[in-house]
Amino acid sequence: MKVLISLKTGRTYYPKQEADYHCKEGVLKQEDVFGESSHIKSNLGVEFLVFDAQLADKSKNLRRAPQIITDKDLGYIVSRTRLNKNSHLLEAGAGSGAATSFFSSICDKVFAYEIREDHKEVVEKNLKFMNCDNVDLKVGDLADNVENHENIDVMFLDMPEPDKVLEKNLDCVKNGGFIVCYVPSITQVQNVIRVQSSRDDLYYEEISEVILRHWRVNERIARPEHRKEIDHTAFLIFLRKI
Amino acid sequence: MKVLISLKTGRTYYPKQEADYHCKEGVLKQEDVFGESSHIKSNLGVEFLVFDAQLADKSKNLRRAPQIITDKDLGYIVSRTRLNKNSHLLEAGAGSGAATSFFSSICDKVFAYEIREDHKEVVEKNLKFMNCDNVDLKVGDLADNVENHENIDVMFLDMPEPDKVLEKNLDCVKNGGFIVCYVPSITQVQNVIRVQSSRDDLYYEEISEVILRHWRVNERIARPEHRKEIDHTAFLIFLRKI
Amino acid sequence: MKVLISLKTGRTYYPKQEADYHCKEGVLKQEDVFGESSHIKSNLGVEFLVFDAQLADKSKNLRRAPQIITDKDLGYIVSRTRLNKNSHLLEAGAGSGAATSFFSSICDKVFAYEIREDHKEVVEKNLKFMNCDNVDLKVGDLADNVENHENIDVMFLDMPEPDKVLEKNLDCVKNGGFIVCYVPSITQVQNVIRVQSSRDDLYYEEISEVILRHWRVNERIARPEHRKEIDHTAFLIFLRKI
Amino acid sequence: MKVLISLKTGRTYYPKQEADYHCKEGVLKQEDVFGESSHIKSNLGVEFLVFDAQLADKSKNLRRAPQIITDKDLGYIVSRTRLNKNSHLLEAGAGSGAATSFFSSICDKVFAYEIREDHKEVVEKNLKFMNCDNVDLKVGDLADNVENHENIDVMFLDMPEPDKVLEKNLDCVKNGGFIVCYVPSITQVQNVIRVQSSRDDLYYEEISEVILRHWRVNERIARPEHRKEIDHTAFLIFLRKI
Repeated sequence: MKVLISLKTGRTYYPKQEADYHCKEGVLKQEDVFGESSHIKSNLGVEFLVFDAQLADKSKNLRRAPQIITDKDLGYIVSRTRLNKNSHLLEAGAGSGAATSFFSSICDKVFAYEIREDHKEVVEKNLKFMNCDNVDLKVGDLADNVENHENIDVMFLDMPEPDKVLEKNLDCVKNGGFIVCYVPSITQVQNVIRVQSSRDDLYYEEISEVILRHWRVNERIARPEHRKEIDHTAFLIFLRKI
Repeated sequence: MKVLISLKTGRTYYPKQEADYHCKEGVLKQEDVFGESSHIKSNLGVEFLVFDAQLADKSKNLRRAPQIITDKDLGYIVSRTRLNKNSHLLEAGAGSGAATSFFSSICDKVFAYEIREDHKEVVEKNLKFMNCDNVDLKVGDLADNVENHENIDVMFLDMPEPDKVLEKNLDCVKNGGFIVCYVPSITQVQNVIRVQSSRDDLYYEEISEVILRHWRVNERIARPEHRKEIDHTAFLIFLRKI
Repeated sequence: MKVLISLKTGRTYYPKQEADYHCKEGVLKQEDVFGESSHIKSNLGVEFLVFDAQLADKSKNLRRAPQIITDKDLGYIVSRTRLNKNSHLLEAGAGSGAATSFFSSICDKVFAYEIREDHKEVVEKNLKFMNCDNVDLKVGDLADNVENHENIDVMFLDMPEPDKVLEKNLDCVKNGGFIVCYVPSITQVQNVIRVQSSRDDLYYEEISEVILRHWRVNERIARPEHRKEIDHTAFLIFLRKI
Repeated sequence: MKVLISLKTGRTYYPKQEADYHCKEGVLKQEDVFGESSHIKSNLGVEFLVFDAQLADKSKNLRRAPQIITDKDLGYIVSRTRLNKNSHLLEAGAGSGAATSFFSSICDKVFAYEIREDHKEVVEKNLKFMNCDNVDLKVGDLADNVENHENIDVMFLDMPEPDKVLEKNLDCVKNGGFIVCYVPSITQVQNVIRVQSSRDDLYYEEISEVILRHWRVNERIARPEHRKEIDHTAFLIFLRKI
């Protein structure tokens, strides 16, 4: 897989098959797209940069069933919990598998639940596309299955009512292990904290928001980008199992 | 290693040796600190939570020579570049080894440079404390050594003048690989972009700032924390080698 | 003038003439729009709120030639400089007169310059619409006219190169008076600071950005709005004439 | 009143009496402090800038009983409601009178309530110091007095439970007039919205937070300041009386 960036429009394309590549800005020859030079031209004279796709580029080509967790949030979950190649992570819901495949590339083992049967196929395709071979994906409600697990380093809850899971026996999470909730609204945070504060074995360490600000800098200007995208995604709650 | 949190003051302690633990809030018995219960008391009657230290806790016990890169920035570097267990990362400067040990816990291999001889011992102690066995640490200037490497997925530059490295032959970075610069000032961003725009083999993908906002939520209140700490750390520049 | 808000679409309309009001959501009778009840219906059955337009609503009906300065920035200029009903303000460029009419509603006297002849008519219409009778509007370059003024409390510079004005004799600004520059890019801030630091009679008090975050709160949710608009506008530089 | 800024420490002093001025950085002669030159020296050789105090400087010399509303919030209240020299404003609680004196400098008339008898003297001293002659200050609970007013353009509520006032007859506020609530916590916003949504004559226009970011720019650097102060103050709720 390659990454093609048009110097005319700034658009990015991802040629996958070894063949001529057709896009709105013309046709690019196979020998150019998969050749030596990083600066090539379409038959319409449009200049392109071309380079090898890395995992970061592949992850932009996933099929998206529900909304996808942004890099700013995924990254902070990893650094805040020190998720690493020895970690076992338990996740629900898998959604389209975007976060799942990211965690899979870092962890030793990922156990993922998705409640909607119709999402399963998308997740499986995405996991296959990202070469994830350490994911145990199940269709079902984690609240009904949380007791079947053990030795979890990080439990990640991306669902409307994480408090439903937090009311269960949570001994599957290691002593000192993390439970991370990802919720868009303060009212959900309030529900999570209500359950947490009623339990002796959950310690609340941090509630935060990660905000990302893009900048544009060239020889003449240096300013924050005029925002083109959604800025609020969710609040992250970091609990410790004790 | 254990994590002790005083319910009176909120202070956190990290007992390492299997022995009674002495702190400002009294003495805690060895059999309590390393026992079964997660709720214990000091001889002064102060209540404590106690749980097993995880990597996230150990990383707070590193010796700090220069300033340490915050979790908000470390996390976004990982998620944005999709750093993973197959990655080779080249880093300079290592500073006190905090970022090095974090990358080491995720990557296959880390090559780290630190220009100051007097930092070396601190880095080595920290890497040993964090059980990092995949780090190749050298004292020296990366600008003089960058040509000795190959097949790097991510080059991470945390130094006052990353443009000095960016002027070198950068073929050690994979086609499509990332060069990430971490710089506190827009004037440094301008210097980086000046070099990048003069080269054919560097594509500038993103300049961003990660901002973290802590919240306090309990049954009565829900508001952002009054800030206790520094909020601006650095700008992150993501370049691609092409 | 009235404010009409559709409870179906959330759209806002501003009926000006005493007559039936026609909009996409039906016809509203004159006796309803200008009547006693604040809850009325169109002939299509759409419910509307209706209330008297205040200055804040009128200001949303100005003709916009160039980009308009946002409320977040206008407000901070007033509070930071303590602009008040005794103040004399000197402004350039007037743009479409939106900021001018705002300052006019607070100050004793506003002197405004606009370099583009073709903007003059728009400014005059807007000032008339907002009933501003204390504005002295001139077409021309403030840099050529700054010496013709005196006793200015606040000089407000909204132009690409405020440093051109800052190089002039600035004795028209009172001792202790403010010069406020509104510039979108850090490169412009750098140019302003370059001139300021070369002069003995300018003290630099503050450079800031004002960031506005909208929230959505109802009985079920409480979260920041997904942004619909531009977030970065400009940096504000507050200088004191000494 | 003068403003003295030490070029050695950056500290600011405010000499009020026409006399020699004594501070930690030495003694400054009366004829210097109140003389022609804006660059003077203490007897210890420390250099100072000196200039005339303006309203913005005087407002920094108010006695502070409770916490003071910041400029970022005061400004946005003015610009968002288009408060102006014709406005009548009704405020509670007056606190130490800092916001009161600011509004007084812009409005035609300010009616202020403060529930604590012991704050009254501070407010009166501050209003006198700021030469406010259009403020009608009363000790008492606005909730008990709101029906005694009429023709209010802006009602400003800075109190722990603004919902208590919002449950009253609010016909003192003009049709289309503003009610602005200043509350630190989302739980308070939720309480306000609960009352608002139960009333036919209140329309909720906006909930926002104003965030201020200071920058440091000189010839070598350009970066956000490392924060020295509290950043979260309050949420602002803008309601319209209909």
